[in-house]
Amino acid sequence: MAKIPVGILGATGMVGQQYIALLKDHPWFEVRYTAASPRSAGKKYKEAVAGRWQLAKTYAPAVGDIIVEDANDVSRAVAAFKKNKCSFVFSALEMSKDETRALEEEYAAGGIPVISNASAHRWTPDVPVLIAEVNPHHADIIPFQQKARGWKKGFIAVKPNCSIQSYMIPLHALVQAGYLVKKLIVTTMQAVSGAGYPGVPSLDIIDNLVPFIGGEEEKSEKEPLKIFGTILNGQIQNAVMPKISASCNRVPLVDGHTACISLAFGLKKPACLEEIKEIWAAYKGLPQEKKFPMAPEQPIIYREEENRPQPRKDRDADKGMAVVVGRLRPCNVFDIRFTAVSHNTIRGAAGGGILNAELLKHLGYISAKK
Amino acid sequence: MAKIPVGILGATGMVGQQYIALLKDHPWFEVRYTAASPRSAGKKYKEAVAGRWQLAKTYAPAVGDIIVEDANDVSRAVAAFKKNKCSFVFSALEMSKDETRALEEEYAAGGIPVISNASAHRWTPDVPVLIAEVNPHHADIIPFQQKARGWKKGFIAVKPNCSIQSYMIPLHALVQAGYLVKKLIVTTMQAVSGAGYPGVPSLDIIDNLVPFIGGEEEKSEKEPLKIFGTILNGQIQNAVMPKISASCNRVPLVDGHTACISLAFGLKKPACLEEIKEIWAAYKGLPQEKKFPMAPEQPIIYREEENRPQPRKDRDADKGMAVVVGRLRPCNVFDIRFTAVSHNTIRGAAGGGILNAELLKHLGYISAKK
Amino acid sequence: MAKIPVGILGATGMVGQQYIALLKDHPWFEVRYTAASPRSAGKKYKEAVAGRWQLAKTYAPAVGDIIVEDANDVSRAVAAFKKNKCSFVFSALEMSKDETRALEEEYAAGGIPVISNASAHRWTPDVPVLIAEVNPHHADIIPFQQKARGWKKGFIAVKPNCSIQSYMIPLHALVQAGYLVKKLIVTTMQAVSGAGYPGVPSLDIIDNLVPFIGGEEEKSEKEPLKIFGTILNGQIQNAVMPKISASCNRVPLVDGHTACISLAFGLKKPACLEEIKEIWAAYKGLPQEKKFPMAPEQPIIYREEENRPQPRKDRDADKGMAVVVGRLRPCNVFDIRFTAVSHNTIRGAAGGGILNAELLKHLGYISAKK
Amino acid sequence: MAKIPVGILGATGMVGQQYIALLKDHPWFEVRYTAASPRSAGKKYKEAVAGRWQLAKTYAPAVGDIIVEDANDVSRAVAAFKKNKCSFVFSALEMSKDETRALEEEYAAGGIPVISNASAHRWTPDVPVLIAEVNPHHADIIPFQQKARGWKKGFIAVKPNCSIQSYMIPLHALVQAGYLVKKLIVTTMQAVSGAGYPGVPSLDIIDNLVPFIGGEEEKSEKEPLKIFGTILNGQIQNAVMPKISASCNRVPLVDGHTACISLAFGLKKPACLEEIKEIWAAYKGLPQEKKFPMAPEQPIIYREEENRPQPRKDRDADKGMAVVVGRLRPCNVFDIRFTAVSHNTIRGAAGGGILNAELLKHLGYISAKK
Repeated sequence: MAKIPVGILGATGMVGQQYIALLKDHPWFEVRYTAASPRSAGKKYKEAVAGRWQLAKTYAPAVGDIIVEDANDVSRAVAAFKKNKCSFVFSALEMSKDETRALEEEYAAGGIPVISNASAHRWTPDVPVLIAEVNPHHADIIPFQQKARGWKKGFIAVKPNCSIQSYMIPLHALVQAGYLVKKLIVTTMQAVSGAGYPGVPSLDIIDNLVPFIGGEEEKSEKEPLKIFGTILNGQIQNAVMPKISASCNRVPLVDGHTACISLAFGLKKPACLEEIKEIWAAYKGLPQEKKFPMAPEQPIIYREEENRPQPRKDRDADKGMAVVVGRLRPCNVFDIRFTAVSHNTIRGAAGGGILNAELLKHLGYISAKK
Repeated sequence: MAKIPVGILGATGMVGQQYIALLKDHPWFEVRYTAASPRSAGKKYKEAVAGRWQLAKTYAPAVGDIIVEDANDVSRAVAAFKKNKCSFVFSALEMSKDETRALEEEYAAGGIPVISNASAHRWTPDVPVLIAEVNPHHADIIPFQQKARGWKKGFIAVKPNCSIQSYMIPLHALVQAGYLVKKLIVTTMQAVSGAGYPGVPSLDIIDNLVPFIGGEEEKSEKEPLKIFGTILNGQIQNAVMPKISASCNRVPLVDGHTACISLAFGLKKPACLEEIKEIWAAYKGLPQEKKFPMAPEQPIIYREEENRPQPRKDRDADKGMAVVVGRLRPCNVFDIRFTAVSHNTIRGAAGGGILNAELLKHLGYISAKK
Repeated sequence: MAKIPVGILGATGMVGQQYIALLKDHPWFEVRYTAASPRSAGKKYKEAVAGRWQLAKTYAPAVGDIIVEDANDVSRAVAAFKKNKCSFVFSALEMSKDETRALEEEYAAGGIPVISNASAHRWTPDVPVLIAEVNPHHADIIPFQQKARGWKKGFIAVKPNCSIQSYMIPLHALVQAGYLVKKLIVTTMQAVSGAGYPGVPSLDIIDNLVPFIGGEEEKSEKEPLKIFGTILNGQIQNAVMPKISASCNRVPLVDGHTACISLAFGLKKPACLEEIKEIWAAYKGLPQEKKFPMAPEQPIIYREEENRPQPRKDRDADKGMAVVVGRLRPCNVFDIRFTAVSHNTIRGAAGGGILNAELLKHLGYISAKK
Repeated sequence: MAKIPVGILGATGMVGQQYIALLKDHPWFEVRYTAASPRSAGKKYKEAVAGRWQLAKTYAPAVGDIIVEDANDVSRAVAAFKKNKCSFVFSALEMSKDETRALEEEYAAGGIPVISNASAHRWTPDVPVLIAEVNPHHADIIPFQQKARGWKKGFIAVKPNCSIQSYMIPLHALVQAGYLVKKLIVTTMQAVSGAGYPGVPSLDIIDNLVPFIGGEEEKSEKEPLKIFGTILNGQIQNAVMPKISASCNRVPLVDGHTACISLAFGLKKPACLEEIKEIWAAYKGLPQEKKFPMAPEQPIIYREEENRPQPRKDRDADKGMAVVVGRLRPCNVFDIRFTAVSHNTIRGAAGGGILNAELLKHLGYISAKK
């Protein structure tokens, strides 16, 4: 099968680099177009990232020679996409929310599906916030979105914030097994790569931690409700539970967000901790059933050692796409508590975006151009 | 006034070093006796800590020349105390719980009051667990303890675990103002110095965190109930509230424990966040009223910046004895949440022990020998 | 004695903050004027640094209320200096070299002596690069500088780069004892605070090091030659020795630069390592003789432990103004090698600047205004 | 081809774990025997490393079920080797030098070839210290070794210290091209994994560095001379050049040793820096010619970016087996200087050991048992 050519907006940033690295040997998609800020535009990709490439993995040599375009120049992109037969873009734009929202809409209006990491459209009611295992059915809103906006082929689909990735899948497994989660108090310890590059100054974080990440707690408390929501009249109606209280901290490590979660179930509660571990071990979603290339074999890995999960040792589990959970124990105040780790720039960013693209291809929303 | 000569058990360990450093210019107490494991016994203190001294601060030259004794040799200690007119010991022993419990009792039986950092006696019902601002009246149990055990001058008083220091004082301020705290979920991010030396291997913690500290969560959940307890029939009767759920993590920083706290009040709740800040700003205890040398002027410092408190910038507030609090905001699930930092080897260990000794001297339980 | 009012240019940056903190209780000088970039201008100092203050130490409350001026507005500064009777400024400007050079000259032309941390004027032949212990006599060039430029009271004096501080004083001690240093190969491991704020991105330095600091090696190789130079015809004539080869690395720690030095003497060599240690122990300069407030008692502290000096444990020696040296041993290739640590933002920046101001006051180049 | 069964001594330690991980999918060798200290003996491998496994990579499930033997029990090993048809052991023993030396000899005497990471036998004149690219011909000493000691099949071959790996190959490339290196001054910045587990206490290294690693400088100065030596009368005669002066530092990062090197050539010098880069780019050894499985395609990778090599970004180059070099520039004192990075537990330890085993199999010194 010929690979589908794709583009990356924001290709030189931290998440953009991760996209480029993860797509290096992807069986379905191939990077043919990169765009970034005007500062990088006109340079070869390898020149634009020289001295700024953050990853141990490298990019495909062919990608190094692609000329980076100005991400603001949509008409040029539309023309290039026709010429290259590109099918869609991954958006890893690092602009203001308003600029991103407008620009992503311009791409969609130009006929280019946008699979986005940006937070700009997470609260647009007809834009799905997808975790491929959890709410693949939310893709059903895309036709409503296209119709309402008069878009033919373009659309926008986004992924949620990296900070909630480690516990949304374990939560979903429990909810799907019939155990409603009513309340949840979570404290996160988030890696510096979550803030992009240059991001967190080293002076702020060596021998230190910062107990605040702008906007992160609000996202952590609201996004799960949309993800657990239902489609009604062409819009996503948010769920009302669980009530979430999040405290988000930046800690001095490179990759991997860790969350400590205490939660209360509704009336129906699992019989014991073993039952929960079994639910997690058995959990599979559409990506696993259909064996999407980016899908982890087992989305939730439970570790029995008392000192796991740990970000450095567990973030790369199943190519960074599995969520690693441990320390499940009763909570003195709620029902249970546990600790979860996920790789914030893979599962929580570029890897999650690629998995969403795989889902949307599977569902027929994106396809090779003739 | 002549200074009271004192001894340090476990003088070469991390907390022992901190005692030595903090007592360097103390106006009431003076180190005249040091004891440690047999490995150090017989050496001069400066030789015993050569290449192992952890602090930027140094020890008094006179202390460097003291010969370190074997901490297990209590009879030798009793004789030395008579000769040196030492009044009491600070115990920073790093043995097993059972060994520590027995050894501290031997010192007390030998007539030497033991002011301890060790956890061994925290659950002994007639031993007070003191935070000098919070429960100074628990010292009243000492005569009962002495009588029950047939001790004349010796007794044991301990301090609680370092991990709860940052929020016990803010909690006490609220409780004392009439606002009962019913439930509390706390996640701590604790510095490596809390594990002593050699403690946490660097391979476990660089670019990583460890979501588990042996015994720490149990201590964090139980000790506050004893501290908030009442004396009844010569024993401390634990309080039943707050119900606490703690998740304790080790993070890669040197000093300063941080806690993220969500709590629910009883029926009576503060009118607003401002009221809470005023309660904290106004809070004083006996150490402040009587101006004990080690007491911080203001036990609770509230920082209005959204990104504070931070361990590296706030741990040393008021010589490491103040608790620095910030990010007070409503909790989506309980009533309020906030973040607190305290210096784990000063307020949480040696500094807290010295403040307890100052309290006990003020109350007449320890005094200069004739 | 009334304190001399002084100003700080670049008062909100990393080094500016260190000046403010170190001058808090200074017996001779008192901060009355602060200036920074237009972004901070017009705000109170405490507002300008809110959320950006980097130090555990704080500023004097009175300084917090000073309105920050625009550092580019020299005429306003001249007027303010007349009104406040300010005597001179410390320059911690963080502009381009050309802008800094021009601006510092404007201040000097306006009658305001400039004691600078910036590198802009280090290669101006009539501007002295002062280490108060090493080349206080270079201040003699100031009258030539003033005359050549038609300045009455203003002048410019600078300090050298932070990376050479740890070994220049030990070198000078040897040279002064008659042992010419011919060749020197040095590798530095420099703290992130040396790059200012925001400075080094945490993504570049956690679990990593960066083997390059722009311009640092050139400065390390050239500045010592000017410092060891002689005044000739109103200009400083550089020394020709030692030939220096420097490799400068950024490592993940907050404060304190470490240097590993191998050096070859000229024909005359010390008899043994002990002789060198004695030379270092006995070394004193004018700041020590005259007991300047910022001067360390002993400029060079030698540690005998095989694993010292270490930046975290030694950087604060004698308020961060002493150089701590250790590991003196024969070199297989040259004559000797050793390791040295100094505090880069104190001895290497603000503390060194203050010591220079104390020197220049002692020599009569700055004084209280009538 | 059936895989050759092999054993690992010291299998639970840091380097032992790396062996287990690297051999997981090795095409020639397969782990069938593990031995460690008595503390681990009798446990399954997975139990012995539970909570202590340091790597993100995992071990083969079959290895997890192997019962760990007591490494001191050689007779049991000899019997097991017969039964399992194991051919040789990798030694990653972490005992004292004398114990290791004796124990490795016992294994060899028992007919088991020992390919060792330990330093114990590096100075035994008839034991080769192999870097497979640099001195494969030193394997020729094995028959002399066997004869002198009366060993039939057993022998001992070792690899050099991890700290010299990053520059020995670049040096060899230059020497082989005809440019004798006369003198070399090197400063290393070494990762904590080099000290094994538990190794460096985190309290010693967070926000700090330690300018001393016991024995490391001596090894760095002597081992290259043996590696560059020649076989004479059944012993390796050390080379007399280059004269090396090494300063070794421990820095706070997980993996990857960095070295800053200044060197002086003999009379014949490369024409320019470009020539050196070409020599390095063209460099190949026997492992490359014969395409050994563990061999990097290109042993020396030169990076042109001014801020490379960096340990976190370059240590994993070509599965951690390539040496990454950069910053080649003239030296003010000697001829040239450059910076080099290599992965200390892969190229510098287990990976280098495996490459040596591949070499020795290629040369016929080890083979499958019938």
